[in-house]
Amino acid sequence: MKQGFEDIIAKVKECGKKTVAVSVAQDSAVLEAVKEAKRLGIADAILVGDEAQIREIAASLDMDLTGFEIIHEPDMIQASLTAVKLAHDGKADMYMKGIIDTKNFLKSVLDKEVGLRTGGVLSHVAVFEIPTIDHLLFLTDVAFLTYPTLEEKVHIINNTVPVCKACGVAEPKVAPLAAVEVVNPKMPVTVEAAELTKMCEEGQITGCIVDGPLSLDLAIDPEAAKHKGATDRKIQGDADILLFPDIHAGNQVYKAMVHMVPGMKNGCILTGTKVPVILTSRSDTFETKVNSIALAAVVAEEMRKG
Amino acid sequence: MKQGFEDIIAKVKECGKKTVAVSVAQDSAVLEAVKEAKRLGIADAILVGDEAQIREIAASLDMDLTGFEIIHEPDMIQASLTAVKLAHDGKADMYMKGIIDTKNFLKSVLDKEVGLRTGGVLSHVAVFEIPTIDHLLFLTDVAFLTYPTLEEKVHIINNTVPVCKACGVAEPKVAPLAAVEVVNPKMPVTVEAAELTKMCEEGQITGCIVDGPLSLDLAIDPEAAKHKGATDRKIQGDADILLFPDIHAGNQVYKAMVHMVPGMKNGCILTGTKVPVILTSRSDTFETKVNSIALAAVVAEEMRKG
Repeated sequence: MKQGFEDIIAKVKECGKKTVAVSVAQDSAVLEAVKEAKRLGIADAILVGDEAQIREIAASLDMDLTGFEIIHEPDMIQASLTAVKLAHDGKADMYMKGIIDTKNFLKSVLDKEVGLRTGGVLSHVAVFEIPTIDHLLFLTDVAFLTYPTLEEKVHIINNTVPVCKACGVAEPKVAPLAAVEVVNPKMPVTVEAAELTKMCEEGQITGCIVDGPLSLDLAIDPEAAKHKGATDRKIQGDADILLFPDIHAGNQVYKAMVHMVPGMKNGCILTGTKVPVILTSRSDTFETKVNSIALAAVVAEEMRKG
Repeated sequence: MKQGFEDIIAKVKECGKKTVAVSVAQDSAVLEAVKEAKRLGIADAILVGDEAQIREIAASLDMDLTGFEIIHEPDMIQASLTAVKLAHDGKADMYMKGIIDTKNFLKSVLDKEVGLRTGGVLSHVAVFEIPTIDHLLFLTDVAFLTYPTLEEKVHIINNTVPVCKACGVAEPKVAPLAAVEVVNPKMPVTVEAAELTKMCEEGQITGCIVDGPLSLDLAIDPEAAKHKGATDRKIQGDADILLFPDIHAGNQVYKAMVHMVPGMKNGCILTGTKVPVILTSRSDTFETKVNSIALAAVVAEEMRKG
């Protein structure tokens, strides 16, 4: 049975509506997304920012602000600190970027007093529903960590496994990707992929199955795996988590999927934080923003349950 | 007007049928492809290998061997040297891998006496027709060079520009890709991309327009380029050549396109050699093999003229 964002949204409805704190909310794309998230029963929003501007934009969108809490804070940095503190204090279940620039938004996330640090490594996960693939794909890291070390890759896996669980994947299969499916000392990423596999076999990485190095076809296409005779592999075209060698490979595959695969759906969050962080970009569609809020909501529920 | 493999095949018919020398031809997938290439008027083939086995496989495929030259050479290494010499001596216009392993096939390509060296760097190009994109995309290097240096990237561009020209793209636009579209000293690939751009502006790289670093969306999606306000860029979603940072990024995007984009068509050749080399893999479809022969044929014609 095909798994997709509809299932994620259905899951949120089961676990009860969440609350998202929006940092510098005077942005039409963000307000449209939180309006839809509220309509769908995914999340209520606390809008922190310039109240007059928020009301003006909402009016231009025919958006009824009844039921939205607004906290007036015209200064962007202050607004981000106020918004993140709501998440820090448990008054909000997720934290979302508004029109503030990414650098200052991340500063609020990392703020030592009111931010969302846990002591771990932050990483990004992009979740995809692809028409020809019956399960969700979790791509990491395509946007945040640039050249993750082996240790950081362990953190990335540990950050991403709970996201899979939140989406209903009990024991995700993790594919550390390379151009090839065998270890080649001249390609350090294949050596690291094998090390991650061993760490999982020896119980240093838990809650998932790691099998690498893998080429992308063996990771996502059961037919290709069969054709190449990969019958002894733990992953045979059925990977859940695609762990990329670096941000260039990850970002380029991510963008190939967004811009070339008709009918794909996606949503992204930042993980490794106290609560899920929604860091959508200007170029994300309305649907992606709503999907990201839904994704953050199921992850927030998973973290709450612990 | 959409450009695709049909146009490439039409072009071969204009320039006249070519001849492909096949190295160790006793392979059903390869024989089926050369049979189709002959039927379409793309190329005749000289089949070098074990004649009895070739005839047996052809019979099992209902393939009429009339019009195919067969050179009996049961030893694989000898067969590859005999076949590559045909291309070296100008008796064949392209050289194609049969059932011989890649390592020994490449040894024949690089053979100092009868091989196809030109003194330059060899590189691979994968040409794609994507339903939602109206021009061909030339991906390089997704399969051969692992971690190209700046100098090797110049060679890759110089190898790939004639392939574009052969396919009707007079002055291709080259996008050296990264995760971002601005130079960041912490990401060496962005620095190299900017250097390639400058080298082209200063006339050290000719016959094309280079603009990098570029993220994949700005390289292939005019809407994304417009949305991000990239109006001062030489490439605004209309790149022809996608130059990848390394083989991992290239190979993973290549496989994402092959395994996730419905209706895509592709073909691949090795360039930087005296004649185009067709090095398809077991996992390539029949159509990809035929497309690769057609691609090699137009490139052979371009090299003959040029």
